[in-house]
Amino acid sequence: MTGKLPFEALSVETLATRLGTNEALCSKIGKDASAWKVREVGDGNLNLVFIVEGASGGAIVKQALPYVRLVGDSWPLPLKRSFFEYHALTRQAARAPGSVPAIYYFDEVQALIIMEYLSPHIILRRALIEGRQLPNIARDIGLFMARTLFRGSDLSMVTKERKADLALFADNVELCDITENLVFSDPYFDAKMNRHTSPQLDGLVAELRADRDLKVEAQRLKHLFTANAETLLHGDLHSGSIMVTDQETRMIDPEFAFYGPMAFDIGMLLANFWMSFFSQRGHEQKGKRDAMRAYLLDVVVETWAVFRAEFSHLWRTERTGMLYQRSLFEDQGDILAAEQALDDVLHQIWTDLLGFAGIEVHRRILGLAHNADFETIADEDLRASCEAKALKFGRHIAVNRRQIHSIDEVNNLAALIEQENSI
Amino acid sequence: MTGKLPFEALSVETLATRLGTNEALCSKIGKDASAWKVREVGDGNLNLVFIVEGASGGAIVKQALPYVRLVGDSWPLPLKRSFFEYHALTRQAARAPGSVPAIYYFDEVQALIIMEYLSPHIILRRALIEGRQLPNIARDIGLFMARTLFRGSDLSMVTKERKADLALFADNVELCDITENLVFSDPYFDAKMNRHTSPQLDGLVAELRADRDLKVEAQRLKHLFTANAETLLHGDLHSGSIMVTDQETRMIDPEFAFYGPMAFDIGMLLANFWMSFFSQRGHEQKGKRDAMRAYLLDVVVETWAVFRAEFSHLWRTERTGMLYQRSLFEDQGDILAAEQALDDVLHQIWTDLLGFAGIEVHRRILGLAHNADFETIADEDLRASCEAKALKFGRHIAVNRRQIHSIDEVNNLAALIEQENSI
Repeated sequence: MTGKLPFEALSVETLATRLGTNEALCSKIGKDASAWKVREVGDGNLNLVFIVEGASGGAIVKQALPYVRLVGDSWPLPLKRSFFEYHALTRQAARAPGSVPAIYYFDEVQALIIMEYLSPHIILRRALIEGRQLPNIARDIGLFMARTLFRGSDLSMVTKERKADLALFADNVELCDITENLVFSDPYFDAKMNRHTSPQLDGLVAELRADRDLKVEAQRLKHLFTANAETLLHGDLHSGSIMVTDQETRMIDPEFAFYGPMAFDIGMLLANFWMSFFSQRGHEQKGKRDAMRAYLLDVVVETWAVFRAEFSHLWRTERTGMLYQRSLFEDQGDILAAEQALDDVLHQIWTDLLGFAGIEVHRRILGLAHNADFETIADEDLRASCEAKALKFGRHIAVNRRQIHSIDEVNNLAALIEQENSI
Repeated sequence: MTGKLPFEALSVETLATRLGTNEALCSKIGKDASAWKVREVGDGNLNLVFIVEGASGGAIVKQALPYVRLVGDSWPLPLKRSFFEYHALTRQAARAPGSVPAIYYFDEVQALIIMEYLSPHIILRRALIEGRQLPNIARDIGLFMARTLFRGSDLSMVTKERKADLALFADNVELCDITENLVFSDPYFDAKMNRHTSPQLDGLVAELRADRDLKVEAQRLKHLFTANAETLLHGDLHSGSIMVTDQETRMIDPEFAFYGPMAFDIGMLLANFWMSFFSQRGHEQKGKRDAMRAYLLDVVVETWAVFRAEFSHLWRTERTGMLYQRSLFEDQGDILAAEQALDDVLHQIWTDLLGFAGIEVHRRILGLAHNADFETIADEDLRASCEAKALKFGRHIAVNRRQIHSIDEVNNLAALIEQENSI
């Protein structure tokens, strides 16, 4: 039935009728659609998300809407983002097996993906706000990033295939546009949809918007983001795009996928750990969060270490693309030259990820799309105090990124800022 | 007639018959095809080029062949390069009016472009070998580069249009592949099609191929070339792709066009001036070339100065794209912030162009496609001496590019190397 009629948004009421004959769904959850239980659980900014449970199991039905859900139909957004999400998920599944939900069905016209229902997984951001220490996230996310970013680049792919795929994803214009404006530009001027904790942060916000070095750096990073098509990015890899149990970690929602710089995914992800770190002070009603803060800094260290180790492993064992060919290095018996090149590549990623991380922190506090880490702090003065620290931290790592040489240095800075202002 | 039959290569004998009813051509040169004079003048590496002259004028008929002309049909090369050349020419004509030949007709199936016959223009490389000092080339090429590179980027274009165009040109895979391998990789290992002046350069060549810093830098630049899709490049902007009279300068042959880093066109172009500089010693049979050497260094200075001035002018007057938006700078009354950002962008271009220039010098001496500047020096020892100086110069500017701060510094280095070894 779907796929032939024009697009129509599903609802809790219509889902079972409209998808009752869908073979992929029926074979997963059971054929008796009249017994299906349907809930709408989309808490993101953009889409409809249904959990459908039948006699033999559950599934997720995700459907794009022709507008931004957070804002309403005054902000149209094309349905084709579902197409890009589907294609990103299939590539991520191939490059980092087990890291994303299994796909059961895709309908381009209905902008609808039926996929694995992850249970009892919860959103990582929620877990971190609750103060839960997940033991495996650093390893799982580090591996996911290294594998998808390496294997989607000219270090690994046949360049003809990368260029064709790049052309395919170049059409994901509207979602790129959201990142380009909401992340890199809007926070630094008085853009219409901005908001921040006011009046507490007014002074600092004015200061940042007058900060030449910061604004030039933000635009330089925007230039890198939009022009440097080196690999297929997740494109929105924050702690709200990751589902976890104590054992398992899955990356979801890659509808922002497109070819961009490796450092973007890593920087955005680490920024979300650092924001969680700065937000912990706001969640201490039921007890101190010292251990949670230490845990979060450890997660940052380990994520970056796992990324580096896995990326280095792939560099040594799977470097079959046209960049840094073995004919120039190992085949000449010069292993050290290949290692020197690896250090060079990792150093570039490092320098750029600090920039992206700093900007991501800013846009979550100054722009349209805030995050729950800070938003759930009811006391506005307390929230503003947490946010102010994060803003200063973000400014420092973005502007000084070429002079910062280790993750410990960044974590020490975070710890210093956190303590200093908390008096 | 063309456009309906399958591709067939033209010849001097068949051209008038096959194109005799082509309206665009007839209206330019005269309807009586039996009176047309046809010459094949293609001296490049890839294509057929005919000059067709009739009662009322002349035209160029350029046709791609399904293989690399320089190598033969053992190296197939798709006809679609003609499609990319046509589309690049139309964009260049719009962005830098008067800088490229006028297009009269394009036939995609026959891979055939009919265009303006430039006369009495000659190839710039030939003029430089002859020791001619063209007064306008620095200004004309500097303007061409600033206008095409700025106006093809997100500094100026609607980003949706740039992304769509990027996707179009991403299919120019095979010509990118030539650059990727022949320019950035083959020179640095014992690749099959390489050649160099031997045995004179054998020692230096071995040294360069064992030079870790150089090889890592070359691959880093290759990464930049293939991934950093910031603007529509000419893609092959050397002195053999420029036609000149004392008054006029026109850029031709943009079949390598694709979205890449601005610095690539500029670096390749300046490399060809520096190679001409180092080759002058080999052309002194009929008199010293001191004035010509001084002229060439002046051309380098002026080209870069004109590029900077025009790019800065466009930055201040045409920056309508999504990068470095005025809302962040001028609209906040902060002109200095916009100027700081401009300096930052120009500095990045500068650092990268030195790298591309150094690599371009190497591949013209060590790779497959040599250039006539050196090749026409019959005395092999003399040629090798000129080439050796250029190789050392290229190595220095590629590897030390981040520590070199002005064009005078580079020219002084060139002059020093030129004198030192010439004893």
